[in-house]
Amino acid sequence: MVKRLGKVTSEYIRELSESIPLFVLVLGTTDTSLIPGITVAGASPELTHYTPAADAEYLVNGKCDVIPVPPMTPDGKPTPALISRACVKMLDIPVITVVSGARVKPRAVPYVDLCGEPGRDIRTGQALSRDVVKRIIANSEKLGRELARLSRFLVIGESIPAGTTTAMSTMVALGYNAWGRVSSASPSNPVELKKSVVREALRRADLLERPTGDAIEAVSRVGDPVIPAVAGVAAGALRSGSRVLLAGGTQMCAVVAVFKHMYGEPDPDRLAIGTTRWIVEDKSADMVGLLSEIWPNFALLSSEFNLGESRFEGLRAYEQGFVKEGVGMGGLLCVTELRGVPRSVILETVEKLYEKELLEPSKALGLTSSA
Amino acid sequence: MVKRLGKVTSEYIRELSESIPLFVLVLGTTDTSLIPGITVAGASPELTHYTPAADAEYLVNGKCDVIPVPPMTPDGKPTPALISRACVKMLDIPVITVVSGARVKPRAVPYVDLCGEPGRDIRTGQALSRDVVKRIIANSEKLGRELARLSRFLVIGESIPAGTTTAMSTMVALGYNAWGRVSSASPSNPVELKKSVVREALRRADLLERPTGDAIEAVSRVGDPVIPAVAGVAAGALRSGSRVLLAGGTQMCAVVAVFKHMYGEPDPDRLAIGTTRWIVEDKSADMVGLLSEIWPNFALLSSEFNLGESRFEGLRAYEQGFVKEGVGMGGLLCVTELRGVPRSVILETVEKLYEKELLEPSKALGLTSSA
Repeated sequence: MVKRLGKVTSEYIRELSESIPLFVLVLGTTDTSLIPGITVAGASPELTHYTPAADAEYLVNGKCDVIPVPPMTPDGKPTPALISRACVKMLDIPVITVVSGARVKPRAVPYVDLCGEPGRDIRTGQALSRDVVKRIIANSEKLGRELARLSRFLVIGESIPAGTTTAMSTMVALGYNAWGRVSSASPSNPVELKKSVVREALRRADLLERPTGDAIEAVSRVGDPVIPAVAGVAAGALRSGSRVLLAGGTQMCAVVAVFKHMYGEPDPDRLAIGTTRWIVEDKSADMVGLLSEIWPNFALLSSEFNLGESRFEGLRAYEQGFVKEGVGMGGLLCVTELRGVPRSVILETVEKLYEKELLEPSKALGLTSSA
Repeated sequence: MVKRLGKVTSEYIRELSESIPLFVLVLGTTDTSLIPGITVAGASPELTHYTPAADAEYLVNGKCDVIPVPPMTPDGKPTPALISRACVKMLDIPVITVVSGARVKPRAVPYVDLCGEPGRDIRTGQALSRDVVKRIIANSEKLGRELARLSRFLVIGESIPAGTTTAMSTMVALGYNAWGRVSSASPSNPVELKKSVVREALRRADLLERPTGDAIEAVSRVGDPVIPAVAGVAAGALRSGSRVLLAGGTQMCAVVAVFKHMYGEPDPDRLAIGTTRWIVEDKSADMVGLLSEIWPNFALLSSEFNLGESRFEGLRAYEQGFVKEGVGMGGLLCVTELRGVPRSVILETVEKLYEKELLEPSKALGLTSSA
């Protein structure tokens, strides 16, 4: 079941249910992910730089080339790319991988390069140069325009470790109260750490006391390369007549904020966010409140898919607050459910892929004790 | 008018006339282009490395970022990207730029990166490592599969200076008599220089006396990154049910040779080459004879478009054997003519773009004396 939160129009839902969308996965890195404890999207801070490329390779190929192990924690909690992969396989959705700016790029999937750069630690107060942000936006708008001619519906997802922290700082820089309202891939959201990093970043950028209305300034000071890339692809596609679903959690609130400041308030008949129940119900965050502050007529869809009945402990962990969102999982689940695929079939497909592509190779490497 | 040479089926023509194709432009470089005199696609040998990126930027944006001048010779002979741009604009054809392996990549257009590498001078006998060729093929097949889900018809063009020389060596390495049968962007084809470079390359690769049946070996020894990329995208798209037009001259004969050795003889109802009259009638080459040796049931289309009546000297130069092909010009002209656009309208569009985007900026920079 897909829940409509906010003003998602029937026309939007009808088109999303009927068209074969194109899934655009935008990858990026920010050195903010190297801060110990800020993210769990990687076995160590350094390895977080490999996560986006590994996600893209797993999504498309069912295995990773940039890391030598299956993309899950040693105790069997899988990447959200598992569920995204199940969805794109079930519906035969084409995937285009996009690199907005990343320290590690995929090796085993072709990707669109936006000629951006990896994001620096936002505590420098200069995450990206203004020129790089402008280039990312110009190239992503062009890409969105071309892709819109190929598909009437774009679903845009993201993979960037520490992306909720850079989302918080970007939104605060633009004048929104995002303090402590962004989600996390961990059941224990390191809210205080994120706040202190964001405070330090904003202070250094001189944006703490006086927010800016300039989205390029906000992103270049305290953002990351993924936010402008997603906003730009969406803007280009909308301008060319397609509809867009932003597939992600609180990071997509930052995308909407940037979008609004650059292109005006989005039309809920043409642009919506699709996420998971795990994000919407996350008590350590406040996606609905945050979004409604940024976008009064916001259009938000939430997939009610749950993994509580899974026969695998690693999948049931999602119900305890692990992972929650990423790699377009929530939006792709919305699309799959709207197309009428029964929840039992989704679960079965996810479990099959989990067993065959993650558990078995992991056991063969002697990595997973139980699952 | 479009001439059918060889067995192009009516079904193929019908679908090409009716569908909106996707244009895929594959860029690459080979250090073979640094050999003085081997190519005219660049103001100096070193600058040939900028030509593919400049072509892509001009095609999409109408201006270049990687070079500070408009993409034409000082005396006003324009890049074939001018005519390709006129075609994609007239028919509103979406463009996807792909980098197979290049020393200079575009800055102002998003591009798909196949994670290949620039080609070394073929006289080393090791143009690319086998692993790189395999990676290019694997990634381009995946890209072709995804793109085929977005469009029923792919038109694939190329831009790689010295590409006819690496095409010659690749075909000879595979056992075909390509000696002196490839074309050139110059009215005085440096046939003897090309032959001596190819001979040296094949001798070093130990393929001069005993050709190989292994296409990966031929490409990695004496080829370039564009040839396997075009073959791979075509193979992936065909496998997913789309039709493909290889838009190019004698370089596409090398693509067909590699395709045949890797995937079997192509079906003329699904794959054809589209080129220009300037290539087919080039007396310094022999595209039809060469192609029929490689592919007995070959499907070849040739655009009869001519520039003899142009009011610009720089465009009339095409009738004296300058440029001839590149950036998908021939195939895109075939598509445009088959769609019923009158030749006068094509000429007018080309001339308008030439004047506005090449001549005027060039004069403003004090570069062009006359045209």
